[in-house]
Amino acid sequence: MRLQRIDHVGYAVEDLDEAVRYHERLYGAEVAHRERMERDGVDEALLAVGDSYIQLLAPTRADSPVGRFLARNGPGVHHVGYGVADVAATLEDLKALGVQVVDDHPRPGSRGCTVAFLHPRGAMGVLVELVEDPRLAGVTAGHAGTSPERRRPPGPTLGA
Amino acid sequence: MRLQRIDHVGYAVEDLDEAVRYHERLYGAEVAHRERMERDGVDEALLAVGDSYIQLLAPTRADSPVGRFLARNGPGVHHVGYGVADVAATLEDLKALGVQVVDDHPRPGSRGCTVAFLHPRGAMGVLVELVEDPRLAGVTAGHAGTSPERRRPPGPTLGA
Repeated sequence: MRLQRIDHVGYAVEDLDEAVRYHERLYGAEVAHRERMERDGVDEALLAVGDSYIQLLAPTRADSPVGRFLARNGPGVHHVGYGVADVAATLEDLKALGVQVVDDHPRPGSRGCTVAFLHPRGAMGVLVELVEDPRLAGVTAGHAGTSPERRRPPGPTLGA
Repeated sequence: MRLQRIDHVGYAVEDLDEAVRYHERLYGAEVAHRERMERDGVDEALLAVGDSYIQLLAPTRADSPVGRFLARNGPGVHHVGYGVADVAATLEDLKALGVQVVDDHPRPGSRGCTVAFLHPRGAMGVLVELVEDPRLAGVTAGHAGTSPERRRPPGPTLGA
């Protein structure tokens, strides 16, 4: 399987602080990382769930992708991020197989990752993000034989 | 964090076989489990992604929850399933905190799990399923100290 793990599920939310408090109160969630991505027009908070994350996304402007999603759908699941070993190679292979993409080339994502979005059209209606996490480099064959510590090492960018 | 892992992301799809073929062709996915749940009106196929699953869900009748979701929204992410150590205790605690639920009591899910759905209203618009997997019993403090083999042991119900 080319998708190695569910890296995160991205929730579009109206108010980031309120969404964080909601998850803290109900689940004892802790914020592993916060980042404002001006290019994407989002403020994000990552909540660790095992080796994956809930990624809370609030728009910084109404005309951003998450802002438009909220206006159209209200809050809910915005996209799913899947970990891959090599975003560039995966993206080229998928394009060769006829997959429509949002990002024609890999680009920087949050927390130092390299990412690319595929288009939901023709993809079961799901907005899929491919995520290459440099902290997981060398972990190619699923997770077999690696300890949890090895698999999600705390990086300097994750110092919340 | 009370949510121990992302157990699965549930996709509502029109045609289960077509959705399976799509993931096989693009990602080399393999079906880990198939099950028809008459009570829920769904036919499901699980594709393993690391220690989690993509759960493809096709309705067996138009008036089932997934059938109504498809009529209203088209295909896309239907819900997110999070692994918890004890569905009953988690559900009672969340209800005491004012969370609206779909299932007032835990009930059988697919592949021998015990599950309960929370209502998306007031929950960031996300339909959340709590999943207690008996094959993971005893794995309570995240995944630390357990090998991948220990964490997702192949059970007889997963013999595809």
